Amino acid sequence: MQQNLYDNETFFNQYRELRENPASYNVLLEQPALHRMLPPLAGKQVLDLGCGFGDGCVGYLALGAAHVTGIDLSQNMIEAAQKKNPRAEITYICMDMTKIEDLQETFDVIISSLAIHYIRDFQGLADSVFRCLKPGGKFVFSQEHPLTTACSSYGNWQRDETGKCIYYKLDGYCRPGKRTVTWMDCTVQKYHRTFSQIISQLLCAGFQVEAMQEPVPTQENIRQVPRMYREYDKPSFLLLRAGKPAENMK
Amino acid sequence: MQQNLYDNETFFNQYRELRENPASYNVLLEQPALHRMLPPLAGKQVLDLGCGFGDGCVGYLALGAAHVTGIDLSQNMIEAAQKKNPRAEITYICMDMTKIEDLQETFDVIISSLAIHYIRDFQGLADSVFRCLKPGGKFVFSQEHPLTTACSSYGNWQRDETGKCIYYKLDGYCRPGKRTVTWMDCTVQKYHRTFSQIISQLLCAGFQVEAMQEPVPTQENIRQVPRMYREYDKPSFLLLRAGKPAENMK
Repeated sequence: MQQNLYDNETFFNQYRELRENPASYNVLLEQPALHRMLPPLAGKQVLDLGCGFGDGCVGYLALGAAHVTGIDLSQNMIEAAQKKNPRAEITYICMDMTKIEDLQETFDVIISSLAIHYIRDFQGLADSVFRCLKPGGKFVFSQEHPLTTACSSYGNWQRDETGKCIYYKLDGYCRPGKRTVTWMDCTVQKYHRTFSQIISQLLCAGFQVEAMQEPVPTQENIRQVPRMYREYDKPSFLLLRAGKPAENMK
Repeated sequence: MQQNLYDNETFFNQYRELRENPASYNVLLEQPALHRMLPPLAGKQVLDLGCGFGDGCVGYLALGAAHVTGIDLSQNMIEAAQKKNPRAEITYICMDMTKIEDLQETFDVIISSLAIHYIRDFQGLADSVFRCLKPGGKFVFSQEHPLTTACSSYGNWQRDETGKCIYYKLDGYCRPGKRTVTWMDCTVQKYHRTFSQIISQLLCAGFQVEAMQEPVPTQENIRQVPRMYREYDKPSFLLLRAGKPAENMK
C-alpha cells in the first residue's frame, strides 16, 4: 500500500501553497527540464503518473496531446484537479501508479513529475510502465536527485558563520531503501536508489536510456531565489527519458 | 597535451607498489566489477586504453581474446609492461588515448580501467572510441566515481572523535572541470564530470548504455581493508558498458 499523505488536510493545503509559488524549484528548475525532455506530443495518448492538480495534464494538451489520463493516489488531489483543470480530453483517476496495468490501455508517452521517489519498488514500476507503453513509446520522469534521497543522518548542509551553505553532508549513498523525513511538518516516506540502480532497473525492464539531466539554475534563477546557489554543490532533481524499442525485442 | 605523471620516477615507483598490493581498492572492488561487465572476449580484438603494467591485457588474453593492443601515455609504463607481461598476442604502444583513430584499426571491445578521469574532453574520446569500434562493439570502462572527482574544497571526509569517517563533504558536484589534487606526494590533474554529462556524451557519440555499476565492498572486503566501510557513504568507482549498435544507424 502506497502512502496517501496528500489526503492529510494540513499537508495538502501547505503543498498547494508551495506549488502555486511562481518562484518554486519546480517552476524554475524541474518543469523546464522536464519539458526539454518530452518527445513531440501532437496526437499522442499520454499518461501522467502522480498528476497532482492536473497542471501538467493541461500543459501536455497544450503541446498537442490527443488525450491525457492523469492518475494520483490522493482523492483530495483528484478532486482538486477536476475542479481546477477540467477538460474533456483529460480523464482523472484516483489510483496507485503501481497498478497502471489495471487500466488495460497502452500509451504513447508516460510522464511522471516528482512522484517516483515515493515508490518502493522501482523495478516493478518500470516493468509496468514498459508494458503500458506502445512500441516506440517514451517514459519521461523527474524525481528527487539520488544525492537528495540519500538523506544525510547529519542534517544535510554545513553552514559557515554567515549562514551560507558550504557543503552537503553525504552519507549512506550506497545504502538504498526507505528514508523518513519531515517536510512541511509532516512525516514523509521516500525511497533512495543509487544512479546505477535506477539505470539498471530501466535497462532490465527493456528500456533504452535516451537522455538524462541534473538541471542547474541560471544566474537569473539565483537572483529570484538566492538559496538556489546550493544546486551547484548538490542538485535537487534527476530527470530521465527512456524509450521502449519500436520493435519490441524483449 | 595529456599529463605524463607516470614518467615521474618517484610517482611511478610508489604507484607500482600500490598496484602490487593484493588488498587494494583496485583488486577488491574495481577489477571484479570491470570483469563482471565484460562481454565474451573469445576470438576478439581488444584495445586497452591506459594499459599500465599490462596486467589487464594478459587477463583479456586469458579470457580468450585473439589480440590485445595496450596503449599508455607513459613511456615508463610501456617499458615496464613489455618487461613484466610480454606476449606475442599483445602489442604495447606508447600513445595518447585521445589519438586512437591514428591506429587506423577497428576493435571488438575497447576497455579502460581507471584512466578516463584524466581526460579533459570525454565527448571527443567517446566519439573516437565509437569510430574505432566495429558495429556491435562494446566500450567498457571504470573511472573514479563522480562523487570522488567532484573533490570537496573542505577536505572530503568528516571524522568523529574516534577518527571514524561519518560523512563526505560534497561541494561543486555541478561544477564540472579540472581538479588538482595531491596523490602520493605528486600533483595530479583530473576532470570532474556529472553523471548526466557522462551519460549524455556517450549517447551523443551514438552509444547505447548497456550497464552501470557503483561497486560496494563485501563484509569480507571490509575485514581485509577496514576503511572500505566508507564506500557505503561515498563510492570510489563508476563503471559503464556502452554498445555501438550492430547496424550503425548514426
